[in-house]
Amino acid sequence: MDGPRCRPTLAACFNPRELMQIPLQSSKTIRSFAAAFGLFVAGASAQADLDTATLERIRDAAMSSDYAWQRLADLSDKIGPRLSGSRGAEAAVVQVSQAMRNAGLDVRLQPVKVPHWVRGAEQAELVDYAGRPEGITQPLHLSTLGASVATPAKGIVAVVLFVRSLAELEGRAAEVPGKIVLINMPFDQNLADNGQAGTAYSQAGEARFKGPAVAARLGAAAVLVRSVGGANYRLPHTGNTSWDADGPKIPAAALAAEDAMLIERLSAQGPVKLRLLLTPKTLPDADSHNVLADLRGREKPDEVVIVSGHLDSWDLGTGAVDDGIGVASSMGALQVLQSLGIRPRRSVRMVAWMNEENGGRGGVAYQAEAKPRIETQIAAIESDFGLSGPLGFSGSINATQLKRLEAVGRVLRTIGAGVMETRAGNAGADIAPLQALGVPGFAPIVDGRHYFDLHHTAADTLDKVDPLALRRQTAVLAVLAYALAEMNEPLERVPAP
Amino acid sequence: MDGPRCRPTLAACFNPRELMQIPLQSSKTIRSFAAAFGLFVAGASAQADLDTATLERIRDAAMSSDYAWQRLADLSDKIGPRLSGSRGAEAAVVQVSQAMRNAGLDVRLQPVKVPHWVRGAEQAELVDYAGRPEGITQPLHLSTLGASVATPAKGIVAVVLFVRSLAELEGRAAEVPGKIVLINMPFDQNLADNGQAGTAYSQAGEARFKGPAVAARLGAAAVLVRSVGGANYRLPHTGNTSWDADGPKIPAAALAAEDAMLIERLSAQGPVKLRLLLTPKTLPDADSHNVLADLRGREKPDEVVIVSGHLDSWDLGTGAVDDGIGVASSMGALQVLQSLGIRPRRSVRMVAWMNEENGGRGGVAYQAEAKPRIETQIAAIESDFGLSGPLGFSGSINATQLKRLEAVGRVLRTIGAGVMETRAGNAGADIAPLQALGVPGFAPIVDGRHYFDLHHTAADTLDKVDPLALRRQTAVLAVLAYALAEMNEPLERVPAP
Repeated sequence: MDGPRCRPTLAACFNPRELMQIPLQSSKTIRSFAAAFGLFVAGASAQADLDTATLERIRDAAMSSDYAWQRLADLSDKIGPRLSGSRGAEAAVVQVSQAMRNAGLDVRLQPVKVPHWVRGAEQAELVDYAGRPEGITQPLHLSTLGASVATPAKGIVAVVLFVRSLAELEGRAAEVPGKIVLINMPFDQNLADNGQAGTAYSQAGEARFKGPAVAARLGAAAVLVRSVGGANYRLPHTGNTSWDADGPKIPAAALAAEDAMLIERLSAQGPVKLRLLLTPKTLPDADSHNVLADLRGREKPDEVVIVSGHLDSWDLGTGAVDDGIGVASSMGALQVLQSLGIRPRRSVRMVAWMNEENGGRGGVAYQAEAKPRIETQIAAIESDFGLSGPLGFSGSINATQLKRLEAVGRVLRTIGAGVMETRAGNAGADIAPLQALGVPGFAPIVDGRHYFDLHHTAADTLDKVDPLALRRQTAVLAVLAYALAEMNEPLERVPAP
Repeated sequence: MDGPRCRPTLAACFNPRELMQIPLQSSKTIRSFAAAFGLFVAGASAQADLDTATLERIRDAAMSSDYAWQRLADLSDKIGPRLSGSRGAEAAVVQVSQAMRNAGLDVRLQPVKVPHWVRGAEQAELVDYAGRPEGITQPLHLSTLGASVATPAKGIVAVVLFVRSLAELEGRAAEVPGKIVLINMPFDQNLADNGQAGTAYSQAGEARFKGPAVAARLGAAAVLVRSVGGANYRLPHTGNTSWDADGPKIPAAALAAEDAMLIERLSAQGPVKLRLLLTPKTLPDADSHNVLADLRGREKPDEVVIVSGHLDSWDLGTGAVDDGIGVASSMGALQVLQSLGIRPRRSVRMVAWMNEENGGRGGVAYQAEAKPRIETQIAAIESDFGLSGPLGFSGSINATQLKRLEAVGRVLRTIGAGVMETRAGNAGADIAPLQALGVPGFAPIVDGRHYFDLHHTAADTLDKVDPLALRRQTAVLAVLAYALAEMNEPLERVPAP
């Protein structure tokens, strides 16, 4: 996952007490709710359109299948990095569409024009500072930010302006011209440890999301942001930045936390000078695709419930966690339904989104096509926060609507994933454009405390994924998607977040 | 620290129960022991030659000083990497000797000829494997091993032979010629978590210590070992390897754990081919030095107690933990005594050893000089296992001798460092040559469970060091060194480990 816009809804990730707090409504209570809110109630309660035995069959099939794991291994081990525009991204489109066809699903490739940014060399070293012995330079560990421009071929040598916030940067505008700005906003692991990993990411991420544009406008020669992440193993966490529409662009990179701290200490003793060389390229936009695979509904095939993850990844790791998990468990959800011969009332559509990481073009392209008949888009699920857990799911729906899914929570509870929450805001970056048009959005609830240890780093690899958790996540997606597609009446539309 | 020979003695690192088990002997008991063993007892017990009030003054001064922290920051922040033969190593010799002179100590540089190995480019990528989409290659993360030779300038492309042990490698000798051998011996973090980090290192480290020589003898084109370390953030842990005296040499590198696991998974499906480029150089041996700084004893200045760490470090990180901590806390120990105006009976000598990491030449050079009058070397302390804790100290002495230091344990107990243990074997790689001649060896007892997360990686940086723990460690070294130098009669000599 990437970008600030999807953070707030993914913020609270783990609260064991929640497990104790799920209200289990009796059928009678459900009926009363339904009556009070004037919902369509077919014969008995709103639950009646969900057959518990079927939900259980789906859950159990997902829990005993290694299909999703195999797809995840294919994606992350055999292709690896999949940044938009790369060979890996295109190989992933081919691999996933072929696998879904092999599973007997209707596959369609939806064209998306994507940014095509390519990382180049990236080197930096401290070349002067107070107390430096003659001839000593020190290497720094960094990763170029997506959308960064290159330095001159010889690199830049400049003094560092060390700041702790964008406000401080603005306040020291007069000092910025010609400097290499370092914005040191540490990731708040305490906050993450208390279940607010998304908020910690939003807070520290501000440096990356907005800092380069501000530094460029103020005349900086280049900009470094402290790596946005929660584990300090001198790991640079990459990610995209964005520029003001008509603003200047400068070289921009994420610096390992250790190196930001080193420069902080040295800066306290005198001017620090460094040499920076970055050679990324922005090529013309490339042709790519969202992969759509449909399990056609038995009664209303034109009405669609989406279950999804994003197919592109950053280029440093193999994208097993961000977001191979989302793609593989979504593929698994469809394959489970297909293998059981279950056809819900409406269609269930697996979407492997392209370009979540550095553009969000896949979600926008899908919305543009869907907009004229947006009423056919019943609900959208996106998994893009790893999978430690999952503990259940959240939806951008009100409590009354959530209660209509009570059978889902009850069936998932036996695998430790019975938490059901209503959460305002976007449930995922790729489905945000649909949510903006009133489509209810859903996401698995995961333990995100250590998600940002790996996020956007080289260490995002298959070994970080627990196969059992992947089965559980597949079960959550399959049961929820089936329920949303099976309900007699769709969920109510939701005001745009 | 490095090399297998010092591991066994540093293995058991953390056992909270030990804190409860220190026998506190009464003066009477001490006297009985002393009498039974025919020790010199001046008037009262053997304890009488250690004045508790002085030990406490030393402890308290160390606990309230940031001198060691400043030296550690100087060493790791201002110089950084200090591999033998490098500019950093020589700058460290100058910096440390100057600081010790500034502190009023007698400084001497002891010449040492050191290996001069220089890391070059290091790149590897998977170029073929079952299921690889056309055009896809995948980068691997690795670090060249010290003493490795270079590949041809274009690199090597060869099939991987994946083995799990040296025994398997020997057993598959016929398959080795022309292959790139990968020896996948994971670091046993469970063992480390149970207080046996040194043993875990010895076990997994066998691949690095011996594997390359075996693979070379069997005709391998190159050899990769799974990175020896306990945290998986795609961090390559470097380190030295050694060749058979007249055996062949081949390119050798440590592969990040994730990449070793990836190759394991892919190898199960078919042949894996990779490209490897390493361009290290071995230059002629370089001139370097051990730094010796003496606080001259008031009665027997020719008799010496050593307190030490090693000055060289690996080249990836800044060597704050391995072994800036040892050097800085040893410097701190002398500075504390000097600042208090305390002159123990014998001399206390700070030694900053050169070349522990890839040769051990510093310890050998010191021994060669000391050997003719080895009886003047009373005891040697080495700190080279980080400093989480420290909980106290261990010595290569018997229980009876250990009891003569009871006052030390009692005084250190108030800062949580009162554990005293007798441990067989070498207490440190640099003092091992002295121990071989009967000199008692000592080391702080630390919690090593996460030492190998950082060991020999780029992440070995100052931010990993807790300033309070560094004060505690300085206190341990200062109090212990003073006690050993002050005792009326030296400790008994110890049979070589």
